[in-house]
Amino acid sequence: MQFAEQGPLARVAARILATTPREAKDAALHAMADALDGARPAVLRANAEDVRRAEDSGTSGAMIDRLRLTDARIDGMVSGLRQLASLADPVGDVVRGWTNANGVEVRQVRVPLGVVAIIYEARPNVTADAAGISLKAGNAVLLRGSSSAASSNAAVVEAMRAGLEKAGLPQDAVQLVTGGREVTAELMAARGIVDVLIPRGGAGLINAVVEGAKVPVIETGTGNCHLFVDATADLDMALEILVNAKVQRPSVCNAAETLLVHADAAEAFIPKAVAAMAELGVTVHAEERFAGVAGEAAVVAAVPEDFTEEWLSLDLSAKVVDSIDEALEHVQRHTTGHSETIVTGSLASSRRWTAEVDAAAVLVNASSRFVDGEQFGFGAEIGISTQKLHARGPMGLSEMTSTKYVVVGQGQVRA
Amino acid sequence: MQFAEQGPLARVAARILATTPREAKDAALHAMADALDGARPAVLRANAEDVRRAEDSGTSGAMIDRLRLTDARIDGMVSGLRQLASLADPVGDVVRGWTNANGVEVRQVRVPLGVVAIIYEARPNVTADAAGISLKAGNAVLLRGSSSAASSNAAVVEAMRAGLEKAGLPQDAVQLVTGGREVTAELMAARGIVDVLIPRGGAGLINAVVEGAKVPVIETGTGNCHLFVDATADLDMALEILVNAKVQRPSVCNAAETLLVHADAAEAFIPKAVAAMAELGVTVHAEERFAGVAGEAAVVAAVPEDFTEEWLSLDLSAKVVDSIDEALEHVQRHTTGHSETIVTGSLASSRRWTAEVDAAAVLVNASSRFVDGEQFGFGAEIGISTQKLHARGPMGLSEMTSTKYVVVGQGQVRA
Repeated sequence: MQFAEQGPLARVAARILATTPREAKDAALHAMADALDGARPAVLRANAEDVRRAEDSGTSGAMIDRLRLTDARIDGMVSGLRQLASLADPVGDVVRGWTNANGVEVRQVRVPLGVVAIIYEARPNVTADAAGISLKAGNAVLLRGSSSAASSNAAVVEAMRAGLEKAGLPQDAVQLVTGGREVTAELMAARGIVDVLIPRGGAGLINAVVEGAKVPVIETGTGNCHLFVDATADLDMALEILVNAKVQRPSVCNAAETLLVHADAAEAFIPKAVAAMAELGVTVHAEERFAGVAGEAAVVAAVPEDFTEEWLSLDLSAKVVDSIDEALEHVQRHTTGHSETIVTGSLASSRRWTAEVDAAAVLVNASSRFVDGEQFGFGAEIGISTQKLHARGPMGLSEMTSTKYVVVGQGQVRA
Repeated sequence: MQFAEQGPLARVAARILATTPREAKDAALHAMADALDGARPAVLRANAEDVRRAEDSGTSGAMIDRLRLTDARIDGMVSGLRQLASLADPVGDVVRGWTNANGVEVRQVRVPLGVVAIIYEARPNVTADAAGISLKAGNAVLLRGSSSAASSNAAVVEAMRAGLEKAGLPQDAVQLVTGGREVTAELMAARGIVDVLIPRGGAGLINAVVEGAKVPVIETGTGNCHLFVDATADLDMALEILVNAKVQRPSVCNAAETLLVHADAAEAFIPKAVAAMAELGVTVHAEERFAGVAGEAAVVAAVPEDFTEEWLSLDLSAKVVDSIDEALEHVQRHTTGHSETIVTGSLASSRRWTAEVDAAAVLVNASSRFVDGEQFGFGAEIGISTQKLHARGPMGLSEMTSTKYVVVGQGQVRA
């Protein structure tokens, strides 16, 4: 189907979902989970086609790993849909309310956004996650997956639509948008059809969407996350946090990318940190002064770009700073506004860090790996916003809603 | 000064404002008010130049009225700044917070947006209002007024910057952006400099900004507002609300533009409504069936476009519908998502209207003129958002903020 036809169908579905009560949405989520579970052979077959095509075209092993569906991954998709059914419905929440002096009652109430479009890269499990989260929050979703996962996505969407139909909700609440690059452009320009567009993927995709879209966008996150070890830091704690933030899952946006060490802690901390990194296979890209303390042989020399981009790999940029001011200055210049951490024993440093660093999350004495919808207890996450409008940080179900004002009088007019 | 220089200066100012406590911001608002009051002769002189230029170029009387500053209007600007000082500061509010099972404390805290850009049309009093609201919420502001008000805006901004300096806050917290159309394009593309861009003005301006901007935009409102008189409406109440919503201030976005009357109320309501409109100088543009009840001589024949755009004048489109379904269908097709009103005695109709109409405000038995920041008790308003992201409906101080997550642990790492 052409996108030009899909958009209006999504709007009709969104209008129905907007007044669909939680019970019916939860039943549909379970029906979608059942259908996906039942379609397992077809989904695995479709995925095998995608994987074969990727292998034939020489795609990297890491990319193929992200593309590949296994029984365990399908289990995850199925249980993800069921878990969404167990979460509270944000729609209908009264955010605030008051009664004016003239007796007019005003209530600000959560409502769905309407039609959500998601542009994402290879992982086919995003197809089920994004559809489930959108539906739970009462939104119709237009899913624009990558062409490399086309067969997998089509099979997953077909199963979910069958589930929706069985549950008596409109199938067009979940649609896969297919076609060439021109369709992405249509989606980004679809004012009046798309209420919000969320890109999920690498910096290239996100920049292209933010630059090109005419519909409202939520920018999700590249994370050039810093870890600053202050003069007064507990150095054992600092080391444990460094290891966790860098190594636990280096490919994600909340992993540490740059280590800043206060000069007063350098002699005591740097040799231990470098040894731990070496043991875990992390290459340290060190500025001159850091390298001087570490020993030239233990690190590689950093180039300026090492401090401006996220590694997403077992690499770490490292630098010595003379003061918290210099650390704040460095972060201010290089932050992508995701998650920035200080390890300190000083109340004053802690306060300056949390007040002055401008990021979605500012952390004191904790790993940046906690900046995550699941860790925040949201139960589901559609991404981590690094912009300041609408949602900043991990986005759960309530970030997938808007509000409306319901104003009730008994004939009042304005004087 | 070139915009390329102004942007970085605004960012530096924003960084300072982000940690400036309420006391200092309030003192600056009073200093700005004092300075503006003291600069009255210079501001009036500058405004006289703008008015003369506008008259020479044949600008309409209504436009010149919007452009003209008087002592009373300057009083309004001065007292507006002082009133902002009396309002609560949204910055630092804890929106929500919790402690994770592992003892990590998470708090979502309101912070300024950063650098706000506002593109607006003729009225020079917006210059003071927008600067004051931005400053109170801790933001630096880039003001892009119209060239027709260039001298007035420059004089107002000069006074406010003098006030900022006297109060010890950075002057660059308030900057006027001047230059040709290419500067507007620069402003709209200034990613990394501008955190949010708010267009205030007519539909043409707003569309141009929404289509062209690469920075996040809040779309403020055109209002093709409907008033539906249901079969069970109290007709005296309906008439009073109609008169208020249409006539009290026809040029604003929350004024009624289209009247829908349930067929069962048509005979009793339409003649009275048409007589009242005639008496108040309102031209009724009626569909055939409405005209049949009103009498052809009392109305003019509506053309289809009468139902798609806002009049902003003493004109009203009018139509008979057979059911609330037809009314909902009409509103769904023609709403600009601003404020939509039902007058009804039916609980069921009231509920369907508030649940099914997709707009920033849905009203029952009250005038749409109440949809306004002042009427909502916000104390200040930067505009009325008709988009669904970030803010929907009247935007007060808290809508001029973002949030950040402050995460504090005692060394916790992710398992």
